[in-house]
This record gives sequence, C-alpha cells and structure tokens, in this order.
Amino acid sequence: MQGYPLRDITVIDLGQIYQGPYATFLMAMAGARVIKVEPPTGEPVRARANISRGSLPLAMLNSNKQGITLNLKTARGRELLIELVKRGDVLLENYAPGVLDRLGVGAAVLTKANPRLVYASGSGYGRSGPKRDFLAMDLTVQAIGGVMATTGEPDGPPMKAGPAFADFLGATHLYGGIVTALYEREKTGRGRVIEVSMQEALYPALASALGMHYWQDGKTTTRTGNRHSGLSMAPYNVYRASDGHVAVICVKDEHWKSLARVMGRPDLADDPRFANHTLRAAAMDEVDALVETWTLRHSKDEIFDIARQHKIPAAPVRDLTEVTNDPHMHERGMLRFMEHPELGRVVLPNSPIRYEGSPLLELIPSPELGQHNRDVYCGFLGLSEGELEGLKAEGAI
Amino acid sequence: MQGYPLRDITVIDLGQIYQGPYATFLMAMAGARVIKVEPPTGEPVRARANISRGSLPLAMLNSNKQGITLNLKTARGRELLIELVKRGDVLLENYAPGVLDRLGVGAAVLTKANPRLVYASGSGYGRSGPKRDFLAMDLTVQAIGGVMATTGEPDGPPMKAGPAFADFLGATHLYGGIVTALYEREKTGRGRVIEVSMQEALYPALASALGMHYWQDGKTTTRTGNRHSGLSMAPYNVYRASDGHVAVICVKDEHWKSLARVMGRPDLADDPRFANHTLRAAAMDEVDALVETWTLRHSKDEIFDIARQHKIPAAPVRDLTEVTNDPHMHERGMLRFMEHPELGRVVLPNSPIRYEGSPLLELIPSPELGQHNRDVYCGFLGLSEGELEGLKAEGAI
Repeated sequence: MQGYPLRDITVIDLGQIYQGPYATFLMAMAGARVIKVEPPTGEPVRARANISRGSLPLAMLNSNKQGITLNLKTARGRELLIELVKRGDVLLENYAPGVLDRLGVGAAVLTKANPRLVYASGSGYGRSGPKRDFLAMDLTVQAIGGVMATTGEPDGPPMKAGPAFADFLGATHLYGGIVTALYEREKTGRGRVIEVSMQEALYPALASALGMHYWQDGKTTTRTGNRHSGLSMAPYNVYRASDGHVAVICVKDEHWKSLARVMGRPDLADDPRFANHTLRAAAMDEVDALVETWTLRHSKDEIFDIARQHKIPAAPVRDLTEVTNDPHMHERGMLRFMEHPELGRVVLPNSPIRYEGSPLLELIPSPELGQHNRDVYCGFLGLSEGELEGLKAEGAI
Repeated sequence: MQGYPLRDITVIDLGQIYQGPYATFLMAMAGARVIKVEPPTGEPVRARANISRGSLPLAMLNSNKQGITLNLKTARGRELLIELVKRGDVLLENYAPGVLDRLGVGAAVLTKANPRLVYASGSGYGRSGPKRDFLAMDLTVQAIGGVMATTGEPDGPPMKAGPAFADFLGATHLYGGIVTALYEREKTGRGRVIEVSMQEALYPALASALGMHYWQDGKTTTRTGNRHSGLSMAPYNVYRASDGHVAVICVKDEHWKSLARVMGRPDLADDPRFANHTLRAAAMDEVDALVETWTLRHSKDEIFDIARQHKIPAAPVRDLTEVTNDPHMHERGMLRFMEHPELGRVVLPNSPIRYEGSPLLELIPSPELGQHNRDVYCGFLGLSEGELEGLKAEGAI
C-alpha cells in the first residue's frame, strides 16, 4: 500500500447491503485494510445470493477487503469485536439505529474501548429525531425524500430512479465524514462519532426541482419527464434517434446557434423567437420538435460525434451492455474484466476517486464468507489455531 | 470554527453549477474557510439567475462561503489566483479538462507554486481517456452512464432521474477525495492532484440493475418501473393509496407475514405460494394486486404509521412541499427556514454529514457577487485599499 493515502488505516466493516460496503470499498481502494465482518450466515446481500448463484453487487462493492465471520449474538463474539476495535481506526455500521447499543457494543462502548476510533453510522433517517426508528430501504427513502416526486412524466405516476441513489449518496457522504474525522484525529488525537442519514443525503440533489417549486409557489407538478427540472432551458431533452435515443442540451446560446447550423437550419440560429433561454423555454414544444426532426435522421453515435465536433453537449442513451463495455472507462481503468471465483468473467469497477501519481490499485476479488478468518483472528488478533477452532465450535464466528 | 474538523483549512473554490460548489459546501460546513471565486459576470448559475430573480440552487450550495470576483482572462487575475493558492490548502475546479492549463494556471503550475496544495478536479469524463474533451452536463451523463437505461417503465422511453445525481455523486466523491488527500498530507507534507469523473461516480449505483443484466446475459430491458431492479423481490413497488402513493417493500419473509396480517389476510401469511422471495417474485402481479387492494383503502400516512408499528419497510411518496417541511429534518437541523437577502424566506439545507459533539454550524446566507472582495484581497492577501480599487479599474476582479 506504499504511496496510497489510507495505507496505515484499518477498518472494521460491519457494513451491509450497499450504503456501508460502498463507503468501505472506497477506503480499501485508497489503501486501507478493510476487514469485512459478517454474521455466520453472511450479510443480507450474500444470504439472498445463495438462493441464486452468487451476487454481482456483492462482488462490485467488496473487492480488496478481507472477509471474516463474527456472531455478535454471542458474548465471545462481542468480546472479539471489542478486540478488533482496539486495534482498528474506523468502525462502520449501517444497522438500524440502536441495534448495536442493544447488543452492548454501541458507539459509547466502542469509543471508550478505543478513544481514537472513528465510529461511522449510516441509516435511513439518522440517529435522532421522530423518524429515527422507521425502517428504511433505498426505495422507501426515494419515496419520502422527493426523488419520486421529481422523476417520471408530468401526467404519469411518481417514479423511482433506477439506480440506488439513496444508498449510494448515503455511502459517499459517509466516506467523506469518516476521512474528515481521520484528518481531524491527526490534530486532536481523538476519534469521532459521525453519522449520515440517507434521506438527508438526497436532499441537496433536488436543487433544480426545488428552485422551480420555490418560484412557482409549489403549485405545479414537479415531474418534467426528460425536460429540465426547472423547465427553464430548451433544447434540454431526450430525443429519438434513428437507432435509439440521444440527450441534447443547449446550456449557452452559442450551443443553440451551433446546433441550428448542424441541423441544416442556419435560419434558426438568428431567429429572434429563439434568441435566448427564456424565449426558447417559452417555445419548448416547437424547439423540441425542430431538434427531433433532425435527430431522427441520424444514429445516436453519429449525433454524439457531430455534437462533439461542434461543441454541443449531447450524449447517446446507452444500455447496460454498452455501459459495461465503455472503452473510455476501460481505458481509464475504472472498469475491468475479471475472473471472479464465484461469478466467472464479470466487469468490476474500481474507485471513482483518483490520486494522481498512484495508479488505481489492482482489484482483488471480494472474499468468500469467512475467507480470512485465520489471517485476521490469528495474524491480526494473535489467537492460536486452537483458539480459532474453539471459536468455530462455540459458534462465535 | 473551534471544534470543527476542517477549521484550519482554506479552500480556493473555482467550483461552478452543482458538482464543485456542493463539494466545497460540505467543506464549509465542516469548518473550512471557503473562498468562492467567480468571474466578474458571476458563475453560470448566478448569471442565469439574473434573468429571473435569484437562484435557490445557488443559495442552497453556497452557504457559509466568502464570495470574490476574479477575472482569469487577465494576467493580473492569474497572478492573484497564484497568490491565493500559495496561502490556501485546496483548490477545486470543475471546468472542462484543460481549461485552466490553457490559461496557464493548471495543476502543474499551481502545485509547483504550493507543493502542499490539494488540487481537485471534477469533470464529466475525467482528465484522461478518449472522451476527456466531450462536453458533459448532468443530463448527458445520465444518458451515457446507464441511469436512463434503468429508469422508467419497461415499455416506456428511457427516463432521467429527476434529481441531478450525476452532479451530486460527482460532488460527494470529490469531497471524499479532497479530505483523503488532506489526511495524507499530514503524513507526507505534500498535496495531491485528485480527480473524479461524473460518469464513473454513477456506475456503482447501478449495482442491482447490473446484477439482473449479468444473470440474464443482457437480454432484457433494464427498466422496471417502480419494481425491484433485479425483479427478484415482491412486494417491492409503489402502490396507490386513497390520497396518493406509498412505497412498500418486504425485504424479509417476516415483513410479508406482518403485511398479510395487517391487510386482514392472515391466510396469505401461511400460503405456500408466497412463502419466500423466489415464489413471491414469480407471482409478482398477483402479489402487487393483493397489496394495492389494501393500500387503496388507506391514506399514505395511515399506511406509513401501520407499517412502522408492524416493522414493515414503507414510506409515503411525498411532494416537494412535504419534503421541504419535513418535521424530522427540521428537528434534526438539516433544514432551516432562513431569510435570504435575495430570495426572502426559503428553506435551506445544512450538511448531511454530522460530527457528534459539534452541533451543525449555523447557516450563513450565500454571498452576493464579490461581497467579500475587500475581506479577501485586503484582509487575506494583504493588498491596500488603493490596490483593490486598481484591480477593479483594470478589470482584474
């Protein structure tokens, strides 16, 4: 880990599903030693995967971690957690608030065992407030948090965003909080309890829709299909191409002038009816029809190429086969074809955070359940082989 | 800033629109001094807002920053940037890659001027690779990055997510990268160039959809409406209530049993046709119809309340008026009613990252254009009043 920013950090990772594991994945790819701690039945994503044949999400989010089992429902298991925490720098958990407290290994106990510990808690609604104990998953947080109010057609039902944005915005805020507390610890010598609520992590991303809502005194629907969330920009939409769809957006008046020319309609570039955002937004239906007349005559990649040459923001709508094979992300090392022991040949992501001067770490496939029990319990905690066998026999790991 | 983790950090913030400004907003709310540097015409969000009457997004993302103007197209302006960088810890920019290099104040020049500088670059596609110079905005990155492929109805067109998730996942990764580099600097004494591409920042959030795509060898549509992206869980949907919509999800079999009982259908709890995820997912239409028969008879808040009592994950679909008035987020201090000098009474967010032991910082309204020119140029850089007037006269600020 020479040359990687978190090379001297050890993470005790109780993360499960998406929010916790992605935060610690980012730590692993910055050079930290991440010990993924699972109950003997596996974390929920692994347990569900056993019904099918392995889990791609589990593989995506747990590369470069060590995997151990630990049964926190046993007294010996909780003692082991405290031993791990004494030797670690960070403990992350995204159980429902209060779960670890009820087990007797909550933030108060663990930070007392190690005052340098950064204790990171991720949850749906946070560690305080009236909704603290409500169960939350990505879908329900998208519902209550405003994502569904702003996604979908104006005359259609509320729609979730396909990707798990509540989980992942929760995760990235959590990563940021942890590293901030590690920075502070260098100054103060002490750790912190930090926390992130998924509902709160979503809120700032509503900025455009909140802007429209504010100016219209909350009177209109906030779903705008593929149009601008503030309905204040045109062209700004997804248009049909000859072989799919393409997104085109004119942020500046010059983009519109360039687009008019490549559409073979230089007259529109100088048409006073379309001279600025306000005017084009007022004539949105007409502007969109003009653009689609052109896009329908070209393939989505042709349009992407033309737009690039003329400096107009545009991009093809890509399906997941195209996304996972994206030559650009493969060339940059963000995506890699890997042989995964459970899944076979798959595409796995690296970290989106790059530290120039240090190449992206090579991916190491996600651990099998308990794969590193010996390394961690004997090598890291210093137990004997006999003690390891005893832990297994008594159901503590 | 006593007691806040980034209290000794100064950020030179060239961020614009959403990605850059949100990353530095998180820094300001962790105690950093953030100097927002805008061209004399204002950053794009401010410039567009002048057409209307002020910008709520600008206010949301720039609280607790100082605001100065600086014209990087002048030689004197670039000299001033270098002076600021020499006295700062972090420079953030999210121009298109290469813009600052062409002006002569790129990463190489600035990190040479201050080897302790953390230089943070956010962009659509990153600082390398074949797509490096393609123009990118949230909409186009959602198109090319797979968000639209996974959002919307199976038989409908590709759909954007309403919130600007490409921008905001870009921003939170950027924040994490900056603070990681600051932590590393405590060990090495040297800064880093760090970078984040919005397209890459989106990819991990596709985990569920990529899982389904992998198992089905890429043969099906990946849009599932409000159903589970892997179509492997039921109930998992948005259902009509008597007064709106509600999201309900049964992660565990016990959730289903509880739901069956509260629906007045205890027979379903023990019905072998619905005994586990695999069986319920196979009977998804029937399961969804059973649930909606019940939800239609109750209001969305009644259902939320019943679900909480019986520990079933559920939540009402809330509109933006409900979201901005959410009593839970107001009680926790995430949201505040504020008098903003330009906008009047508005709801503004704090940071979703909480450091226990330090209350959330009080919000200070976003600066007007150039509001802190005197404080920064005279107080921080040490110029005289006469020099400040000279800079204005020559168009350098």
